[in-house]
Amino acid sequence: MVHPPLAERLAGIRLLLLDVDGVLTDATVQITGGAPESKTFHIRDGLGLVLARKHGIKVGWISARPSAATTARAEELKIDFVYQDKEPKHLAVERIAKTAGVTWDQICYVGDDIVDLGCLKRAGMAVAPGDATPEARDLAHYVTLANGGRGAVREVVELILKAQNKWDAIVAEYAQ
Amino acid sequence: MVHPPLAERLAGIRLLLLDVDGVLTDATVQITGGAPESKTFHIRDGLGLVLARKHGIKVGWISARPSAATTARAEELKIDFVYQDKEPKHLAVERIAKTAGVTWDQICYVGDDIVDLGCLKRAGMAVAPGDATPEARDLAHYVTLANGGRGAVREVVELILKAQNKWDAIVAEYAQ
Amino acid sequence: MVHPPLAERLAGIRLLLLDVDGVLTDATVQITGGAPESKTFHIRDGLGLVLARKHGIKVGWISARPSAATTARAEELKIDFVYQDKEPKHLAVERIAKTAGVTWDQICYVGDDIVDLGCLKRAGMAVAPGDATPEARDLAHYVTLANGGRGAVREVVELILKAQNKWDAIVAEYAQ
Amino acid sequence: MVHPPLAERLAGIRLLLLDVDGVLTDATVQITGGAPESKTFHIRDGLGLVLARKHGIKVGWISARPSAATTARAEELKIDFVYQDKEPKHLAVERIAKTAGVTWDQICYVGDDIVDLGCLKRAGMAVAPGDATPEARDLAHYVTLANGGRGAVREVVELILKAQNKWDAIVAEYAQ
Repeated sequence: MVHPPLAERLAGIRLLLLDVDGVLTDATVQITGGAPESKTFHIRDGLGLVLARKHGIKVGWISARPSAATTARAEELKIDFVYQDKEPKHLAVERIAKTAGVTWDQICYVGDDIVDLGCLKRAGMAVAPGDATPEARDLAHYVTLANGGRGAVREVVELILKAQNKWDAIVAEYAQ
Repeated sequence: MVHPPLAERLAGIRLLLLDVDGVLTDATVQITGGAPESKTFHIRDGLGLVLARKHGIKVGWISARPSAATTARAEELKIDFVYQDKEPKHLAVERIAKTAGVTWDQICYVGDDIVDLGCLKRAGMAVAPGDATPEARDLAHYVTLANGGRGAVREVVELILKAQNKWDAIVAEYAQ
Repeated sequence: MVHPPLAERLAGIRLLLLDVDGVLTDATVQITGGAPESKTFHIRDGLGLVLARKHGIKVGWISARPSAATTARAEELKIDFVYQDKEPKHLAVERIAKTAGVTWDQICYVGDDIVDLGCLKRAGMAVAPGDATPEARDLAHYVTLANGGRGAVREVVELILKAQNKWDAIVAEYAQ
Repeated sequence: MVHPPLAERLAGIRLLLLDVDGVLTDATVQITGGAPESKTFHIRDGLGLVLARKHGIKVGWISARPSAATTARAEELKIDFVYQDKEPKHLAVERIAKTAGVTWDQICYVGDDIVDLGCLKRAGMAVAPGDATPEARDLAHYVTLANGGRGAVREVVELILKAQNKWDAIVAEYAQ
């Protein structure tokens, strides 16, 4: 199969699905004995996701490792779909896609590790953060300049909104 | 409009206004499920702000995202003005400016993201951290060598105090 | 003694023993007065250790500095052996080896500081993270490209599983 | 005054005094609203200080900003002298020196900011971390290759113990 050019593919994205560890974070987790773990999220990623949702892109987070930190951040950002369980990720994506009424071609999936390979293989737009595993980068249509947890998600959001001709108006409104 | 040279503009600054996430921090936030979030501040930035206030510069922090961590750090440093709400930031600045009795020309504003563009456009001295978004850097009169949360604020404070011929005396007193 | 080539040595590894601070972490520890300390672990290291155990490699963690954070993360990953006390580390290794029924030749030991030298000297495969002390790197058969806490452990796991011809099948299964 | 060569000066050190923020840490502090702050210490620095004390060097920490995190870490490492108050640091050093029975010539002081200048000017051996302020680096006899909180203290300890011909025996004992 020959993929359509990147810009065309981005223009058709209706659902942005993100792995959590290594994508929304730098893949580290902070553990304290006897207390819940912490994860470190990026504020500019957060604003990007708020803007994506406001401008017609649904957003989902898919992690194989449940964490109350992930849940808390997802609630703050009003993420549309949050899955945190052990089933193969592409099955979770297929259920989300059905609910959202989109096909794999309309999905942008961002993942960093081998558990993401099944989704990266299927997504219309497959993205890996700059510091993802070689296996994830090999399957990606695009590797972000930013690393996971350091702006990779914001970079993807801007790619989509620019390809959909929405970004300039957003910036112009803030610049008033 | 032709801007006066940088040094002259810095010499007239009476109010230093700072965005929080991405300026006073590296734009990350640490989330723990069921507990308040944490932010990471920089001690040398803190000393810079203490010295600025001691030498005649009022300081304000303006964030669109309320956080108890921001409030706690602002109280420790006795920051003059702290605004944390969703209204457009330039409206908050205008209220602060009125209270402080200064005009936009006497304000140095530091911001990293598109929500700061309205203030960066209006401030007499507009600054973006080294790792700010391209949109913020484009509107800035000065981009700091340091990144947000890694000394960007200290760098701005020293620019102002040096332009106002106050820095050498401060250093000399500590070096006794 | 002339060491057999690296690949042959890796093929014989049955037990992977890891120092904690500086290997599973970046050597930092986060201290809060009046509360337990935190350590920062890496999710891709964690998946590597899960895969190692699933494919016939037993795993042990050996630290001279007890921490509830280490215990919590080890339990999550179902680490086979966890020693956290002040005795010389090579004595702990010898007890683990006896329990596991392996010899020093079948052990891969990863350590970053001078307290690890006795184990690095004895292990069939001695590894130091990229940012380990010069003394640890001098005794290592292999120095990882990644730093401690930033993927060094994952890199070692992949070296072993690749030398044992297990890695490609693991990746292929996830890529379905 | 012409300073004696570096090695000679290091050979005479009996007391190692360290600023905390920016020296034992990377100058960041983690703030959580309504909870005590956290600081991030380095384990290899900690082992260095344990070895220094064991081999005849007394150790003190001097901070202008009291923190329970500092106290907790100092207690763990059995630091000989801990001062955390606002008085000029060189006065604290003079009291410590009197108690320890040493002169300024026998003191190695490590500091990163302008509040340390008075001590850096007086110490027999003045050290600044690699990422210290220009003012601190200008007064230092030695600037560490490592940054604050990332091994700067360990580097200084090794300089002293090597100059005093103690380091090789320490390493040899661990390498048995």
